[in-house]
Amino acid sequence: MKSRAAVAWGPNQPLSVEEVDVMLPKKGEVLIKVIASGVCHTDAFTLSGEDPEGIFPCILGHEGGGIVEQVGEGVTSVQVGDHVIPLYTPECGECKFCLSGKTNLCQKIRETQGKGLMPDGTTRFYKDGKPIFHYMGCSTFSEYTVLPEISLAKVNKKAPLEEVCLLGCGVTTGMGAVMNTAKVEEGATVAIFGLGGIGLSAVIGATMAKASRIIVIDINDSKFELARELGATDCINPKEYAKPIQEVIVELTDGGVDYSFECIGNVDVMRSALECCHKGWGESVIIGVAGAGQEISTRPFQLVTGRVWRGTAFGGVKGRSELPDYVERYLQGEFKLDDFITHTMPLEEINESFDLMHAGKSIRSVIHF
Amino acid sequence: MKSRAAVAWGPNQPLSVEEVDVMLPKKGEVLIKVIASGVCHTDAFTLSGEDPEGIFPCILGHEGGGIVEQVGEGVTSVQVGDHVIPLYTPECGECKFCLSGKTNLCQKIRETQGKGLMPDGTTRFYKDGKPIFHYMGCSTFSEYTVLPEISLAKVNKKAPLEEVCLLGCGVTTGMGAVMNTAKVEEGATVAIFGLGGIGLSAVIGATMAKASRIIVIDINDSKFELARELGATDCINPKEYAKPIQEVIVELTDGGVDYSFECIGNVDVMRSALECCHKGWGESVIIGVAGAGQEISTRPFQLVTGRVWRGTAFGGVKGRSELPDYVERYLQGEFKLDDFITHTMPLEEINESFDLMHAGKSIRSVIHF
Repeated sequence: MKSRAAVAWGPNQPLSVEEVDVMLPKKGEVLIKVIASGVCHTDAFTLSGEDPEGIFPCILGHEGGGIVEQVGEGVTSVQVGDHVIPLYTPECGECKFCLSGKTNLCQKIRETQGKGLMPDGTTRFYKDGKPIFHYMGCSTFSEYTVLPEISLAKVNKKAPLEEVCLLGCGVTTGMGAVMNTAKVEEGATVAIFGLGGIGLSAVIGATMAKASRIIVIDINDSKFELARELGATDCINPKEYAKPIQEVIVELTDGGVDYSFECIGNVDVMRSALECCHKGWGESVIIGVAGAGQEISTRPFQLVTGRVWRGTAFGGVKGRSELPDYVERYLQGEFKLDDFITHTMPLEEINESFDLMHAGKSIRSVIHF
Repeated sequence: MKSRAAVAWGPNQPLSVEEVDVMLPKKGEVLIKVIASGVCHTDAFTLSGEDPEGIFPCILGHEGGGIVEQVGEGVTSVQVGDHVIPLYTPECGECKFCLSGKTNLCQKIRETQGKGLMPDGTTRFYKDGKPIFHYMGCSTFSEYTVLPEISLAKVNKKAPLEEVCLLGCGVTTGMGAVMNTAKVEEGATVAIFGLGGIGLSAVIGATMAKASRIIVIDINDSKFELARELGATDCINPKEYAKPIQEVIVELTDGGVDYSFECIGNVDVMRSALECCHKGWGESVIIGVAGAGQEISTRPFQLVTGRVWRGTAFGGVKGRSELPDYVERYLQGEFKLDDFITHTMPLEEINESFDLMHAGKSIRSVIHF
């Protein structure tokens, strides 16, 4: 079928909005009509050409909300008309990882997904008979897209897809890191490094977890107002201090925080985030994705004296079994999403959303179809 | 009172066995008669002069077993005749760390202990009227020594002090890292790097935890026989492989181990230990103490994809509340200690124990008084 889509023909070029051909879903696959999609830093990272896994031409986008349009053979968990959030981390329920119960990193289709292909090794997008690759198994910058059944979270139809699409990536990543990975408990102290969409979502998560103190760190003072509204208790700009920011936080908190979160992707900040944790029990969670080849380091004494260093992907949230509950909590008013949506625009203006992001003027732009 | 002791007059000199004066215990302190003491690598490290906290002259030794000889004012938890294991990590039960319930790193007397002094800022050892410093709050290379009450674990009198003295450091560190810090569960896979006393104790801990596979790694094949006797299932010598040892282990275990332990103090091995862990859930515990200024490093992707990096001191075991139970388990035959004691000797021959250690010929020498 025909679909409007924003095609990335090559690295570092503007996306080209045009009509492409979308193949109908095969066995175990689902065709969805995308209603809205957030534009995330990861899309920009791949478009920049720096992503070693980036393959062109492709259709980017991985933070979407849509409605099931058609199901392939054998699909049982969703049906036409269901509202769904595409998952770049699927949940098959059968692989070693899913069965472990210890991780959300389902590996069932990892290999083909990393190559921009569906599980059978082919693509569902074509232009003039030539294949266009999928992206992160989602490709939500297309009016219609095809996903494996295991890559769809079925969510409550009452939830506006124009907002809960953000739960497909950034917001869940930040909230999940706090509530799911770190399991921040009531009364705990928390430091959050970086106030982009993920950092702000981590602030929401810490507020929901009833942390007693939520310290946010950013080099841009303009981010602090919203952070305070979302629950931050202390706002720190490292530029105002001569000494390392971890020392500032350790002094401010009589020994360090119980939990810290790195939401930038900067390896030096990852070290600061670890070292601002309290001796004996402080845990630091890396959320940000660092550039290729970069490394973190610290003195092992930091760990031997009781700090813990961990990381998280998609907030440790299992997409099909746990993400629907995030939507329910949103519907119950436990958190808001409109604070994050600074811009909305039609698909035709999608390149503007990248410009706004690069200029630091948006938290999230949401594309409406 | 008079006491025979091995005095370290300065770095890199043989210990000098001579008579020193031991002051009677002050308020909150206890005089103990040392029955036996293991000689640990940490004693040798400080004696080498490389320990930045090393202070001379001092009386080394921190892996002892003794009998209470006299108690100071206000001491209630032990009485004359009790059998005790000195603790270089005390347990006051009152400080922020003890009250957290999350760590064994009691900080109550850390500052004075680090300076070789009793909590009141003075020493109990003298020679010809000149003070000799304490070491790790223990100084078990003396027939008589004085410790704070909070630094003594009272243990079952049925246990031979010549053996359970090893629970004062190395054995508890290795076993505790497995059972207490990592909480290895039945059926888990484990990799243990380095087969000194701590590594071998970790093997015992993994066997007690009923790990399904216990992989040990050492560059010295002669260590493997005892490791197998203690429960190791796979013995790997990295010298026999061209590729990084973490890759060998990942292949051997279909993706990596559930838990790994670094028992050497080598920052490169610490990295291998982390990276041989299974994606999604593998946890690596640093036990070894690295040289001053050395750093660990890895790609943050290792953590973002679910591995956890932590450390442990004294196996995370709380000395007064948990160590007595280790002695009980020893008495119940759950593990043996005599495998570790390769040499015994009187105090007068203590320098030989250091020679044996440096030559790699001993696991533990135990000094009898």
